[in-house]
Amino acid sequence: MKKILIANRGEIALRIMRSAKEMGILTVAVFSEADREALHVRYADEAIFIGPAPASQSYLVGQKIIDACLLTGAEAIHPGYGFLSENAEFARMVKDAGLILIGPTPEAMAIMGNKLSAKAAALKYQIPMVPGTEEAITDIEEAKRRAQEVGFPILIKAAAGGGGKGMRIVEELAAFEEQMQLAVSEAKSAFGDGAVFIERYVSSPRHIEIQVLGDNYGNIVHLFERECSIQRRHQKVIEEAPSSVLSPEIRAKMGKCAVDVARSVNYTGAGTVEFILDENLDFFFLEMNTRLQVEHPVTELITGLDLVKEQIKIARGEKLSYSQEDLKINGHAIELRVYAEDPQHNFLPDIGVLKTYRTPKGNGVRVDDGFEQGMEIPVYYDPMIAKLITFGADRKEAIARMRRAISEYDITGIQTTLNFGKFVMEHEAFTSGNFDTHFVGKYFNPENKESTDADEALIAAIVALKSLKKKTSSAVIKTAEEISGNWLKNRTKY
Amino acid sequence: MKKILIANRGEIALRIMRSAKEMGILTVAVFSEADREALHVRYADEAIFIGPAPASQSYLVGQKIIDACLLTGAEAIHPGYGFLSENAEFARMVKDAGLILIGPTPEAMAIMGNKLSAKAAALKYQIPMVPGTEEAITDIEEAKRRAQEVGFPILIKAAAGGGGKGMRIVEELAAFEEQMQLAVSEAKSAFGDGAVFIERYVSSPRHIEIQVLGDNYGNIVHLFERECSIQRRHQKVIEEAPSSVLSPEIRAKMGKCAVDVARSVNYTGAGTVEFILDENLDFFFLEMNTRLQVEHPVTELITGLDLVKEQIKIARGEKLSYSQEDLKINGHAIELRVYAEDPQHNFLPDIGVLKTYRTPKGNGVRVDDGFEQGMEIPVYYDPMIAKLITFGADRKEAIARMRRAISEYDITGIQTTLNFGKFVMEHEAFTSGNFDTHFVGKYFNPENKESTDADEALIAAIVALKSLKKKTSSAVIKTAEEISGNWLKNRTKY
Repeated sequence: MKKILIANRGEIALRIMRSAKEMGILTVAVFSEADREALHVRYADEAIFIGPAPASQSYLVGQKIIDACLLTGAEAIHPGYGFLSENAEFARMVKDAGLILIGPTPEAMAIMGNKLSAKAAALKYQIPMVPGTEEAITDIEEAKRRAQEVGFPILIKAAAGGGGKGMRIVEELAAFEEQMQLAVSEAKSAFGDGAVFIERYVSSPRHIEIQVLGDNYGNIVHLFERECSIQRRHQKVIEEAPSSVLSPEIRAKMGKCAVDVARSVNYTGAGTVEFILDENLDFFFLEMNTRLQVEHPVTELITGLDLVKEQIKIARGEKLSYSQEDLKINGHAIELRVYAEDPQHNFLPDIGVLKTYRTPKGNGVRVDDGFEQGMEIPVYYDPMIAKLITFGADRKEAIARMRRAISEYDITGIQTTLNFGKFVMEHEAFTSGNFDTHFVGKYFNPENKESTDADEALIAAIVALKSLKKKTSSAVIKTAEEISGNWLKNRTKY
Repeated sequence: MKKILIANRGEIALRIMRSAKEMGILTVAVFSEADREALHVRYADEAIFIGPAPASQSYLVGQKIIDACLLTGAEAIHPGYGFLSENAEFARMVKDAGLILIGPTPEAMAIMGNKLSAKAAALKYQIPMVPGTEEAITDIEEAKRRAQEVGFPILIKAAAGGGGKGMRIVEELAAFEEQMQLAVSEAKSAFGDGAVFIERYVSSPRHIEIQVLGDNYGNIVHLFERECSIQRRHQKVIEEAPSSVLSPEIRAKMGKCAVDVARSVNYTGAGTVEFILDENLDFFFLEMNTRLQVEHPVTELITGLDLVKEQIKIARGEKLSYSQEDLKINGHAIELRVYAEDPQHNFLPDIGVLKTYRTPKGNGVRVDDGFEQGMEIPVYYDPMIAKLITFGADRKEAIARMRRAISEYDITGIQTTLNFGKFVMEHEAFTSGNFDTHFVGKYFNPENKESTDADEALIAAIVALKSLKKKTSSAVIKTAEEISGNWLKNRTKY
């Protein structure tokens, strides 16, 4: 493999190119109209223009990516995260074009890309699932019976919903019937389908995920866990490895389960098996992400492995050069996603120019970013500016380094999640390790209820308005409607 | 310990402050006229002006440092490297003022600061020394006899010399008498003292040093070796840990010797025992540096310990929290000193303004620096801009990362050792691990003989002339003579 194309932008494109460069592999960047001056374009050995700023016309157009490969002679494609990274159809197109996708097979991607087929695959290995109905139901008496089996509190969710839409929590049997009726009629009017799932509601959940790596010869290992419970709007913002709550026994058990989930689809490459962990330290399979995660650096720091290099080695047919027993956790790592968002205003995205941009340095500090002072955060993509990652001999030192690094990070011209990071690092619930995914709503922003999907549209509109106000250049005139539409469409969750 | 003063400047002052900040300790900077805008001043919680630019009137004036402590209420002083860091007299002054020096006792410093007393101390533990005369001699017949005992090639060096002055290599017995006569008469005319030492000449030496740490309770451990054989003008420029040439057995032997040397003076704090290693992998004690070394980060990366934190913990009376058996080497680290020097012109120092200054980032890259874009490299101090340190799972990955990081480092306006670093990283002698301290003279600059002391004066003059030419501000007018005099006086070797 002499040349690869990176079908992505921003920090992750740069991060992938760095590993490729260390392996002596040439890199091809692709870029949209909005990314002409982007760092990933400057860093690559070659760069190909692929269309207008909205990702639907550039980064999401599989054929343009494949054409760029054929034009430059790149033999393989690294999709990063987001965009086409979990698109099985794209994976098939790449294969059909005689190119290599640095990722799993289209088949594994397709199975894990669908919640039902993913669960069905995982069940072959007796992976624990959140107790509940396996199929959607509408019958209220049947639902009641199943609810009693599962145990309260119960979550009722619309089969056709998603992202929190049409969900209801029921605390006790007495309230169930009424809530079930409301849920079914709500689902009918919202989705035209009244069917719902019933499952145990985990009231104090922690999000724990396991990194796995599989080669083309049936060898699969796990690289321990990442704890991703600090979230806002159901999206991760602070991650760490290892988790402060897992015992070696639970870690080994979850690791084995993750390897089994991967084995159920003959998984190749890097993937992540996500679990929910309840207050009794029981864990349940959620889903598998068939790509590199945003938060992969914390795993790199505690294992000493370069995950992008591992992905490339697997894609070019190498065997894993270690077995599970060779892998050890060394130290502790924490990642803070530095978003262009205003934590004081419910994490609404902010946009504009990085007037000042100075990154922290020193022992145990890693900054993966895609911007420089004077650059603009484009309105079209995910508003992440950087990932600030710290590493220490133990959790205490990693936290101390994160606090120090946040204090050194100097960003003006834009609101960021840095101060939120400081709040978390200093909060007793975090430092003691006693927290769950409700951290933000419980401690940081208790006056605002956690945002729902309605907010997403609002956010899009606000970002659009901000963009119109701040843009003085007349090069592109867009209506708020158009921009907010694009923003919603292209905003991906990782 | 609530507040410490850092009696230094540049990257090492910043580096110390970072660790202090992570420990929740306030910092006080001191600064000269030339350092008003320096980063270490901006980073500290307080900063005290201590005088004119020449170090002899500021950073080297012990009383000013102590006064700054008393003024700000700082309880301890970290001297960094260079300046007052190995000055036993200063260490005594600090103690007498009721303050704590973050470093060894004045007694240990004094013994190790003198070659003869250092050797005498080390001999108590049968530490191997380069075979030779223990006392200076002038008698030619006696010298001849001793030379035969020691074995050829032989090095004759003036007892009153230093830094390579008055040294002669004699390859065989036949040439000895004539060379000895020349050496003695040369020493007489140069130093007014004809006495010389005779010792085995190691023709292919490697510079290997062992990091040690000792607490106040008699516990001393070593943190393995650093290989510092890539040098120019007898000064280190590239260091790595571990060395590519040591077997675990030799490593353990050298480690034990280093601990014994430290024990011979009841050493406390961080120190470094330097050895010369010959082509048969026999090692000989050279000297002990009683302070933090420039190249300490490579040890931090392979051990996971923060050496400045360890120094502070020892100084405030804590016991070492690990024994020798707990310490393990993890991975491989390389440091390149990025000097404002022109490798193409015999590493002559360059000065001026950092027109562009962009540092590399990403996995396994650490930059310890003291400058920002637009800043000037002051003519008064050591011309080191930064230390670029890379870490990898093994030596191959650390080298690949260093090559990648060098390619990302963007400095214009000044010549640097970055391209020299690239040359070394790509050279077969380095990548194979088959090199010694003659690397530069042998491979990089074979047309220029290695520079002698005469060059130092020339360098000073050239730096002074460059400085006069480049300085357009009329604020300070200095003659070339004055500047070169200061430069020579204040330039320290670490």
